[in-house]
Amino acid sequence: MNAKTAPASPTAAADPVTVRVDLGDRSYDILIGSGLLDRAETWAGLPRASTALIVTNTTVAPLYAERVQAALQPHYPRVRVLALPDGEAHKDAATLERIYDELLGQACDRKTVLFALGGGVVGDMTGFAAACYMRGVPFVQVPTTLLAQVDSSVGGKTAINHPMGKNMIGAFYQPQRVICDLDTLDTLPIRELSAGLAEVIKYGPIADPEFLSWIEAHIDALMARDKVALAHAVRRSCEIKAAVVGSDEREGGVRAILNFGHTFGHAIEAGLGYGEWLHGEGVGCGMVMAAELSVRLGLMPAAFRERLEALCVRAGLPVRGPALGAARYLELMRVDKKAEGGEIRFVVIDRLGSARMQGAPDTMVTGVLDACC
Amino acid sequence: MNAKTAPASPTAAADPVTVRVDLGDRSYDILIGSGLLDRAETWAGLPRASTALIVTNTTVAPLYAERVQAALQPHYPRVRVLALPDGEAHKDAATLERIYDELLGQACDRKTVLFALGGGVVGDMTGFAAACYMRGVPFVQVPTTLLAQVDSSVGGKTAINHPMGKNMIGAFYQPQRVICDLDTLDTLPIRELSAGLAEVIKYGPIADPEFLSWIEAHIDALMARDKVALAHAVRRSCEIKAAVVGSDEREGGVRAILNFGHTFGHAIEAGLGYGEWLHGEGVGCGMVMAAELSVRLGLMPAAFRERLEALCVRAGLPVRGPALGAARYLELMRVDKKAEGGEIRFVVIDRLGSARMQGAPDTMVTGVLDACC
Repeated sequence: MNAKTAPASPTAAADPVTVRVDLGDRSYDILIGSGLLDRAETWAGLPRASTALIVTNTTVAPLYAERVQAALQPHYPRVRVLALPDGEAHKDAATLERIYDELLGQACDRKTVLFALGGGVVGDMTGFAAACYMRGVPFVQVPTTLLAQVDSSVGGKTAINHPMGKNMIGAFYQPQRVICDLDTLDTLPIRELSAGLAEVIKYGPIADPEFLSWIEAHIDALMARDKVALAHAVRRSCEIKAAVVGSDEREGGVRAILNFGHTFGHAIEAGLGYGEWLHGEGVGCGMVMAAELSVRLGLMPAAFRERLEALCVRAGLPVRGPALGAARYLELMRVDKKAEGGEIRFVVIDRLGSARMQGAPDTMVTGVLDACC
Repeated sequence: MNAKTAPASPTAAADPVTVRVDLGDRSYDILIGSGLLDRAETWAGLPRASTALIVTNTTVAPLYAERVQAALQPHYPRVRVLALPDGEAHKDAATLERIYDELLGQACDRKTVLFALGGGVVGDMTGFAAACYMRGVPFVQVPTTLLAQVDSSVGGKTAINHPMGKNMIGAFYQPQRVICDLDTLDTLPIRELSAGLAEVIKYGPIADPEFLSWIEAHIDALMARDKVALAHAVRRSCEIKAAVVGSDEREGGVRAILNFGHTFGHAIEAGLGYGEWLHGEGVGCGMVMAAELSVRLGLMPAAFRERLEALCVRAGLPVRGPALGAARYLELMRVDKKAEGGEIRFVVIDRLGSARMQGAPDTMVTGVLDACC
């Protein structure tokens, strides 16, 4: 199908769709489509203020900051841009402080609206700054990476890293709106596209076997950035995430399944030093490890781990963990937020489309690590 | 009345009273009485965890940390104590980081309960750390200063200071319980007692003319730390604060009246450097300034300002502001959290027992400052 000759087709990427995140008085919309940044409707109806602050990074700023600034100027008397250094290594207290310095240096009041323009790092930090500045100002997510569009921008988890653990300092704080312009994925480095696909793949095993099959059938189109395929992947991912978050905003229970692959993945990220592997790469490899653990726990057949590994390989993801040594992996995973009383709790798959939290003996985990590193 | 011979009298300080803060699923009790630290009931029914962390400061730790630790040991397998440096000058990002370092260094999980043992600085910082550690762990306020018992420990405002403004970085995050042991006021330096009385006095003009008259009649007993008088002052203050917070948890409106005196007071604190004046001293002097402003706005007779000033003098509070210059005051007040679009908004009294937010011309504010500094 040629999008140019069939712009009104219901499957054309240019038709924006809306996914609602239902959280009572904290509910909001996720807008998904092409060309959203330049549509006036995208920015209508947000909280009014005398200042809007676009927080972005030095990579994304030259690509999109000017367009977003222009789009916001009809709505806010003053629209400022703050470009932070790029990368997970900068998702720390020092960089967070730079957002506060800008806000206070510009005498921004407590109606100021923050716009997070970038990937997961920018979104997590900007959201956390919004949660804390004057005890809370509104913010809008404008994710420009696939990972942020399908996962981190939705659901209100904000955080910075601590030298002793990832996302250890943060808040549950919901955005006013999430704006996923698929066109911004055109400028995404291929490695980041793969990292985002890890989170897309994740939704299959934990919630939707049909979606897993769909991803397998469309993985080449997704890697080629086909807009129709991307539109469906982003939409279905957001629908699943919105449903899970809507039933458990503060991760008292079911929301934890969204961390499938993350316990192992976070250990890889922290063990190598943040920024060495991308978050999504850690998750991709971590999912294979968590699948192996599900197999060893007798919950899933060995074919499941092989199927997931094959898909991750096609998505360009690493599937062998770095050789940190099992002892180091275990040490890093014991400070995972899901750990309780020193016991590591893993998200495992108990049947296709269903996940649960479970502990495992250290010897079994060591076996998984030996097999996967 | 001699409390020793009449321990069961309904007005004896030894009878603990409970004030409820009604916030739906975030509701909690304020316990007020003598000897609370050593009563087993005080600590019963709190969230269970493998670790409790008592956060206190180097002044309070030698006085009370051991007793609280002993009281908690039946409930938590591990009870640790972290003593931070004392004083408003340390209510900053660097000291907050020390709490996170302790939590992560001890591999504390997300059920860990924090206990804030100390004054407003300890309570604000510990509460903010609890709000952010792993996106939120439970905490309990154990205020040991009058100011913290009547104001800062109640209502869930937590924060740290930023070099450019007081309480600029924080969260609304409610404690599980507030434990006000009046006996801890015995060790309070007289200057801190006065600072606490500033917040007690505050509740009169904004909410309860009878309470203002009661304070005037009992100010000498309060300054002499009479337990019966203190019990009433703490209880009535907490009742008023609980009612206000219950109707406006996140300060969308009426809650702002609790900041009577604080706009001027914060400017004094920031202008002199945090720790030079105590917070309550700034509030005491700031209330006189805000009363003067209420008079100049034509809302109140001059006698009101004189009455409030006389009471503050009897409470041992400074009533003349430091000579920072009106321009500096105005600059500092423009970054106040209540300011909007550069306009400073003051809490003024429009009739005894009633307050409201209002702007004022710079010339009038300058006149107030000239008259009060």
